[in-house]
Amino acid sequence: MHRSHTCGELRISDINKTVTLSGWLQKSRDLGGMTFIDLRDRYGITQLAFNMESNAALCEQARKCGREYVLKVSGNVIERSSKNTNLPTGEIEIEVTAFEVLNEAQTPPFTIEDNTDGGDDLRMKYRYLDIRRTPVRNNLLLRHKMSQQTRVYLDAQQFTEVETPVLIKSTPEGARDFVVPSRMNQGQFYALPQSPQTFKQLLMVAGMDRYYQIVKCFRDEDLRADRQPEFTQIDCEMSFVEQEDILNMFEGLVKHLFKTVMGIDIKELPRMSYAHAAKFYGNDKPDTRFEMTFVELKSAPVETLHATSIIPAGFPVFDNAELVVGICAKGCAEYTRKQLDELTDFVKRPQIGATGLVYARVNADGTIKSSVDKFYDEATLKTWAEKFDAEPGDLMLIMAGQADKTRKALSELRLEMGTRLGLRNNNSYSCLWVTDFPLLEFNEEENRWFAMHHPFTAPKPEDIPLLETNLGAVRANAYDMVINGVEVGGGSIRIFNKDLQAKMFNILGFTAEEAQAQFGFLMNAFEYGAPPHGGIAFGFDRLCSLFGGENSIRDFIAFPKNNSGRDVMIDAPSEIDTKQKKELGL
Amino acid sequence: MHRSHTCGELRISDINKTVTLSGWLQKSRDLGGMTFIDLRDRYGITQLAFNMESNAALCEQARKCGREYVLKVSGNVIERSSKNTNLPTGEIEIEVTAFEVLNEAQTPPFTIEDNTDGGDDLRMKYRYLDIRRTPVRNNLLLRHKMSQQTRVYLDAQQFTEVETPVLIKSTPEGARDFVVPSRMNQGQFYALPQSPQTFKQLLMVAGMDRYYQIVKCFRDEDLRADRQPEFTQIDCEMSFVEQEDILNMFEGLVKHLFKTVMGIDIKELPRMSYAHAAKFYGNDKPDTRFEMTFVELKSAPVETLHATSIIPAGFPVFDNAELVVGICAKGCAEYTRKQLDELTDFVKRPQIGATGLVYARVNADGTIKSSVDKFYDEATLKTWAEKFDAEPGDLMLIMAGQADKTRKALSELRLEMGTRLGLRNNNSYSCLWVTDFPLLEFNEEENRWFAMHHPFTAPKPEDIPLLETNLGAVRANAYDMVINGVEVGGGSIRIFNKDLQAKMFNILGFTAEEAQAQFGFLMNAFEYGAPPHGGIAFGFDRLCSLFGGENSIRDFIAFPKNNSGRDVMIDAPSEIDTKQKKELGL
Repeated sequence: MHRSHTCGELRISDINKTVTLSGWLQKSRDLGGMTFIDLRDRYGITQLAFNMESNAALCEQARKCGREYVLKVSGNVIERSSKNTNLPTGEIEIEVTAFEVLNEAQTPPFTIEDNTDGGDDLRMKYRYLDIRRTPVRNNLLLRHKMSQQTRVYLDAQQFTEVETPVLIKSTPEGARDFVVPSRMNQGQFYALPQSPQTFKQLLMVAGMDRYYQIVKCFRDEDLRADRQPEFTQIDCEMSFVEQEDILNMFEGLVKHLFKTVMGIDIKELPRMSYAHAAKFYGNDKPDTRFEMTFVELKSAPVETLHATSIIPAGFPVFDNAELVVGICAKGCAEYTRKQLDELTDFVKRPQIGATGLVYARVNADGTIKSSVDKFYDEATLKTWAEKFDAEPGDLMLIMAGQADKTRKALSELRLEMGTRLGLRNNNSYSCLWVTDFPLLEFNEEENRWFAMHHPFTAPKPEDIPLLETNLGAVRANAYDMVINGVEVGGGSIRIFNKDLQAKMFNILGFTAEEAQAQFGFLMNAFEYGAPPHGGIAFGFDRLCSLFGGENSIRDFIAFPKNNSGRDVMIDAPSEIDTKQKKELGL
Repeated sequence: MHRSHTCGELRISDINKTVTLSGWLQKSRDLGGMTFIDLRDRYGITQLAFNMESNAALCEQARKCGREYVLKVSGNVIERSSKNTNLPTGEIEIEVTAFEVLNEAQTPPFTIEDNTDGGDDLRMKYRYLDIRRTPVRNNLLLRHKMSQQTRVYLDAQQFTEVETPVLIKSTPEGARDFVVPSRMNQGQFYALPQSPQTFKQLLMVAGMDRYYQIVKCFRDEDLRADRQPEFTQIDCEMSFVEQEDILNMFEGLVKHLFKTVMGIDIKELPRMSYAHAAKFYGNDKPDTRFEMTFVELKSAPVETLHATSIIPAGFPVFDNAELVVGICAKGCAEYTRKQLDELTDFVKRPQIGATGLVYARVNADGTIKSSVDKFYDEATLKTWAEKFDAEPGDLMLIMAGQADKTRKALSELRLEMGTRLGLRNNNSYSCLWVTDFPLLEFNEEENRWFAMHHPFTAPKPEDIPLLETNLGAVRANAYDMVINGVEVGGGSIRIFNKDLQAKMFNILGFTAEEAQAQFGFLMNAFEYGAPPHGGIAFGFDRLCSLFGGENSIRDFIAFPKNNSGRDVMIDAPSEIDTKQKKELGL
């Protein structure tokens, strides 16, 4: 071993010990008579002291070493004259008596400091240097702790980790598969799993009872800013359960993680129906760190059977809207014209696509000043303020139009206002379950129904008759866990009856033959005694980034890919040999 | 929850409790007035009792259920009149008061019993039924326990689990890669990793210090009986270590696994050099559960500088042989002519390819009867017996020919004799380290040197000068862990110096450009302060099968592939859409 201790280990109680340390040269300070080197490893930093008087040769040698040299030193632990209380090792230093350069280092292309001067591209190309930086290393250590504690919890609950195969079968339903040409079965392909969904269900049919796996999954999709072609799930499934059992079990997991990894006690997770989330947050993953819930001035008829409104006719935009809905921004009545214009521009951006924004300030004296003053009298505006719970000093922001679109746009505005008002602190956590999702959603383009979760999700038993009459109204036994407006996990109770599964495939537009060809093994398995079962999968990269208080999952993946799916460090994907292609029949 | 208890949980102390159980109908016995059902889940079996007198309707209903029906029952825990001491739940039964069929089951294609009537193909096709069988389920539970305890040990030693990417870059060195066509970078391919070798080395350059991962790896090789295209490794790497540190650390892991999983104390692992293993076992993974080491009557000159022999001239086969070597089979002097012929046939099989086998029995009276009596006198045979430590009742088995080939053949015979003599009990364990492997081996066909371990393995420092003069003599800082004649793990100290790594690539026939194109990222990383490092990887499937006392790894993989690389359950690989192919430019 090239060390007796790590660089994070020595304390005042170790004084007079003779030790050997190895690590990287973080910083070197030449003070004439003395040279000090900060030696770094994963565990910390220890100061090395070289004295010109007592050992000039050694000191000269040390002075020749540059940043990131790999050094091995021996010496005595002594008390520092000027202590550094910011460092756990800050009370001691090593009086070096022997010194060896284990490896030299070129000057790194960016500084190995908490705040580096390296841009994203450079950091990714030299990821092995980037990981030397404390914040990145800490992210990976956090991730390790998260996976450890996930296992501690699930193992204690009698979950068995079972590895499911990576080389599986391509299925056209869902996202695009990565495929792997088979050499031994030419013209045929394996697919990489988008999730171990069917395998975990088969494990339930197999009687494994409680399964989990922290597992890589793959999706060949065009990458948005924060998606990776390969990602990691905490994948779980349980037998003989109902929805409530799963919610309780995995609420327990998340509480355990917050407690053991962050030292935070999380209260019981509220349950919110999909319908409620849509109506009051315009979003099936509401950020509940702050209220600012939607207030409807004019409700869409579909939800209330007949439209309700407290808006007199007069303003054509509102008159013609399916929905008029707003939020109350507390204490924002003083917003300047410029600030209000910014908000209008924000909602008019193509990504949001609203046509405009109505505001109404409640002044200190209780009067109301709005952008629609010429259409509505003060008395009408006061009824709005009442409905909004708006007090003097508050600002009402109101949007109108087609119901779904307007809610989506207002949701974006709500989040923007939350950010502006500092209500979305990354170090505070608000967790909830969203439940009662629709089973199906209609895709206008393809003119067919799609499973909102996936084709194996069970409808609520009481909604099964609606499968004959009103597909859009069927609710699923499906649930998402949402933290700070991010969907961190989702799952469902599964269909475990062959006929119901066949019916679902039929609704989704599969012929009986297609269903058999693609999912025959699962439907056959259901003939041999399938238990009731259900499960959940958590996006592990995302969960880690939430715990780490950062927005990008890339910072929590050791070797991530860029937005073109490239690993710029190893330069993959790349061309392959003609011989290789020929063997594969490509 | 469809149960209050599992089927393995209830004991005599639970009597009079009202419980709900769910599980599979294992067996049903109709005794006229009573019907008994064995209800099974992952945790055990509980007997259900239905009484015609007290509830005829319920009893009739129960009688209609076939094997593998999924049942949910409620009732009272009562003491059994005839107890079954073989079952943990054998003292109680459930007097059923409510009964529900959760799912029906067709008659399974084979019996769900410890010893099934299902052949391999059928079991694989219905793997979800096969896993219901106790021995298969226990294998998966053992595997889970092994991975748990691996993590417990490594976590405590400050190893960090880091996930390395699955979509990486193809490298022609080593086995054949599975490749994944890239849609976003058409004409280019990812490769699936044969191991995370370069990534774990980069993690050492990155300062992660101690890394591990239980990770899927992939090799597109023609499958022999016991190989899988996807397999799992316990992959580990450490910084600032020398070979001895790694041997101690992972000897500790294996001891921990034996202790916690099997309750077995393993003694310190002996270290055996590759040269010793070759000379005395003819095998770099010697089965040391039994001795029967090789005895050389005539040694090859290459190892001893000059040939040594205790064989007088006379028998041309021995006279012309490079090596004459044998084993002593204790107590086998009584072997019949038929048995000896069997052994001769065994070594003559094409897989072994020996030309013959010489035997010499030491009779009870000390005389020796051999198959070469006409060439050698009794005095000569006695010198052999002395050298073999052969006592009255023993049998000497001797082979001759070209040294390597003869050793290989004799090794097979030694293993066969070990098996015949019952010396290879799967429930006893003999572990050792084999060290000092050659760095390189020459491939006659391709007329070039190959790395015996891999191109990143460091030569022993004292052998570095031999890189200029005698490549075959260079020993590596490489080591294998061998248990019961199976290589369960192997690793090495790595090269961490750019120039030495470049030299290795050169020796292996890479041009500087090829080395840069394929491994440039690693060699570049070595420019920025690479620490000394080394590691090991264990074949996890194999390790599990060894612990489980079985020879096939397939029994320890939930969903294995067959010898053609097919998953016969899901029918993969399979054809894919023309659209899918077109998108990939195939």
